[in-house]
Amino acid sequence: MPTDSTVAPESTTGRLEAFSDGVIAIAITLLVLEISIPSGPGSLLDRLGSQWIVYAAYFVSFVIVGAAWLSHHALIRDLRRTDHPLLVLNLALLLVVSFIPFPTKVVGEELFAAEFEDQRTAAVLYGATLIALAVAFNALWWWARRRGLLHPQLPEAAITARTRQYLIGPVAYAVTTALAFLHPLASIIATGLVALTFLLPAHLLKESA
Amino acid sequence: MPTDSTVAPESTTGRLEAFSDGVIAIAITLLVLEISIPSGPGSLLDRLGSQWIVYAAYFVSFVIVGAAWLSHHALIRDLRRTDHPLLVLNLALLLVVSFIPFPTKVVGEELFAAEFEDQRTAAVLYGATLIALAVAFNALWWWARRRGLLHPQLPEAAITARTRQYLIGPVAYAVTTALAFLHPLASIIATGLVALTFLLPAHLLKESA
Amino acid sequence: MPTDSTVAPESTTGRLEAFSDGVIAIAITLLVLEISIPSGPGSLLDRLGSQWIVYAAYFVSFVIVGAAWLSHHALIRDLRRTDHPLLVLNLALLLVVSFIPFPTKVVGEELFAAEFEDQRTAAVLYGATLIALAVAFNALWWWARRRGLLHPQLPEAAITARTRQYLIGPVAYAVTTALAFLHPLASIIATGLVALTFLLPAHLLKESA
Amino acid sequence: MPTDSTVAPESTTGRLEAFSDGVIAIAITLLVLEISIPSGPGSLLDRLGSQWIVYAAYFVSFVIVGAAWLSHHALIRDLRRTDHPLLVLNLALLLVVSFIPFPTKVVGEELFAAEFEDQRTAAVLYGATLIALAVAFNALWWWARRRGLLHPQLPEAAITARTRQYLIGPVAYAVTTALAFLHPLASIIATGLVALTFLLPAHLLKESA
Repeated sequence: MPTDSTVAPESTTGRLEAFSDGVIAIAITLLVLEISIPSGPGSLLDRLGSQWIVYAAYFVSFVIVGAAWLSHHALIRDLRRTDHPLLVLNLALLLVVSFIPFPTKVVGEELFAAEFEDQRTAAVLYGATLIALAVAFNALWWWARRRGLLHPQLPEAAITARTRQYLIGPVAYAVTTALAFLHPLASIIATGLVALTFLLPAHLLKESA
Repeated sequence: MPTDSTVAPESTTGRLEAFSDGVIAIAITLLVLEISIPSGPGSLLDRLGSQWIVYAAYFVSFVIVGAAWLSHHALIRDLRRTDHPLLVLNLALLLVVSFIPFPTKVVGEELFAAEFEDQRTAAVLYGATLIALAVAFNALWWWARRRGLLHPQLPEAAITARTRQYLIGPVAYAVTTALAFLHPLASIIATGLVALTFLLPAHLLKESA
Repeated sequence: MPTDSTVAPESTTGRLEAFSDGVIAIAITLLVLEISIPSGPGSLLDRLGSQWIVYAAYFVSFVIVGAAWLSHHALIRDLRRTDHPLLVLNLALLLVVSFIPFPTKVVGEELFAAEFEDQRTAAVLYGATLIALAVAFNALWWWARRRGLLHPQLPEAAITARTRQYLIGPVAYAVTTALAFLHPLASIIATGLVALTFLLPAHLLKESA
Repeated sequence: MPTDSTVAPESTTGRLEAFSDGVIAIAITLLVLEISIPSGPGSLLDRLGSQWIVYAAYFVSFVIVGAAWLSHHALIRDLRRTDHPLLVLNLALLLVVSFIPFPTKVVGEELFAAEFEDQRTAAVLYGATLIALAVAFNALWWWARRRGLLHPQLPEAAITARTRQYLIGPVAYAVTTALAFLHPLASIIATGLVALTFLLPAHLLKESA
């Protein structure tokens, strides 16, 4: 089935933005569905408290998807127009975002598993998903640069600075993922801290870099 | 990954509104997924009727999220522009809104638990979530005032009046949550009544205040 | 928390439409989540085929929510502006729409229950939900008429005709619900046929009326 | 309940696009909810790895729904206006799109069932859903052509070319579905490859055709 329009060849970012916002809003809201009430003999308070890692994973994933929304927002605003490969790369990004509820569930259920090996698997799966997310952002940005889809007013210095900023993502998540081989819980905590820094405004990041 | 745009520094409220509407619309619609059909020996009518608290919690949460949508709507329309911290505070608000299905489920399943302690836990968790929601609204409003993000036409008297109105939320929910220590069901009913008053138009609230 | 804006008192229909579209789109898409794969000894084909009533209920509910979207769409376009009570009445309509996945699940699981009484309960719950939906539409329309929210170009004859058309909904669903006391399956089938007629363009309905 | 507006007879494509985007975005994001963590005696890595077909089905369905979004997008942009039957045909298309999570779940759970017959059922159900999707696209296009809803600037040659392109969908999916009778896994793989080609820009397809 044709995916290009003859009359209005793909150029504006409006519907790309609307569809992406929809997917990101849904992914961030679905996270809560994975939280259940543990059954068992203890009091409700004890049972709810015993799964604190589930809430922690929920919170970290919410921050990550929220920061991804802010980043996506910023990237799209820097585009003058889109093309077909950009739409496909954007779908790849949305694939990763909409997958996040699954590794979040795995961390919530298995980060404190009896076997260290299973804890490590959970943390590595989570980290690998975030590396994929950061790579997808870099791919979008790289394509937009290469194909001249960026706003012409964007100064070259700003483009270079942002390219460097985008590269922080994969590197930071690779480091926190590597940490999972030593200490899975520390890996998830470090990942959450990295995600929180992505919520800071860019000028603060620039100063701290 | 950068979350600021160089070309179009964050200023309009359009996409903030669209994303927030998406999250709130999804959270309000997901509530129904937590309602299940009780199995057991009785007739279907008896089984469905036995979980009336589940429907009551669904209704109260629907009203709360619906009122949050109206409030959010009103707040955003009073903004002239947004800034980065406002977007982050808005994410914090959406975090609370999208969490609401979980305490709703806890109330539905545990408000009539065998132990009074568990009933209390359920009602307190529910109330605490709503206090967090009301605090998040106050934080958004406070930031918008402090940073001059409000429309310049907004008269000072109106701003003062609204600031007072926003403070009603945390206080009212704190009172209904405290009630949970005495009577968990009364706490949930009082919470529902408070939420229903938030559906009234502001001028009625002003008259009654 | 205030739900009225001082600067921009509620008047346009844009965000009402966007939020309603969101809720309706989510409700219609969540229906599929209630379909599960029956376990058991038979072949997959037999097991999937054995729950044909689940697919039928899914289809009828999809048509009903789809027709509700078309109707809502048409109603909102006839509005010149909104007011606060209209927003609250619209929330009541969305409450019913977002509840529909639950009676759909009940029909899918219990319409062929061993006891006739349970079959009847399932069909009556389904029909009662649709009566509530039709009543909510009539309430919205009635309020818009009473408060002068309709477009002034709307000719009086058209308003009278539509008022009559809106009344068809509650009456038709009341009839199909009453049928549940005699034959629950016939009641669901009749409901589906009524919903399908709502997909017909208004001029056909006018001719057939 | 009336579904036509007297003041503003159905003509623009805005809200059709918004509602369709909502449903497609939700359907694509709900797919992940069907992925669960297998319980069992093995390590987490083994258990997660053992259900690779679940991830494969998730990926193929994500690509299919993503390509459907691109196709829908292109089709709507070629429309000058809509009419009532087009809205109903669009609902039929959305019915199929929102159903996709179910056959995806069936493939994930049953493609490696003990009985060949059950494997075949799963693959045929999946393929039949995609045939229905492709037929729904053809029906929309055919109606738009027949009723003059297309943009007048659209050259006749382009219309003829697209009509041919739309016909590729049902034929391709019919072939991959027929393959299910010989080799269910090969059928799913072939389906995924067909869907991936739909992500290619039209000019590449034209060259390769």
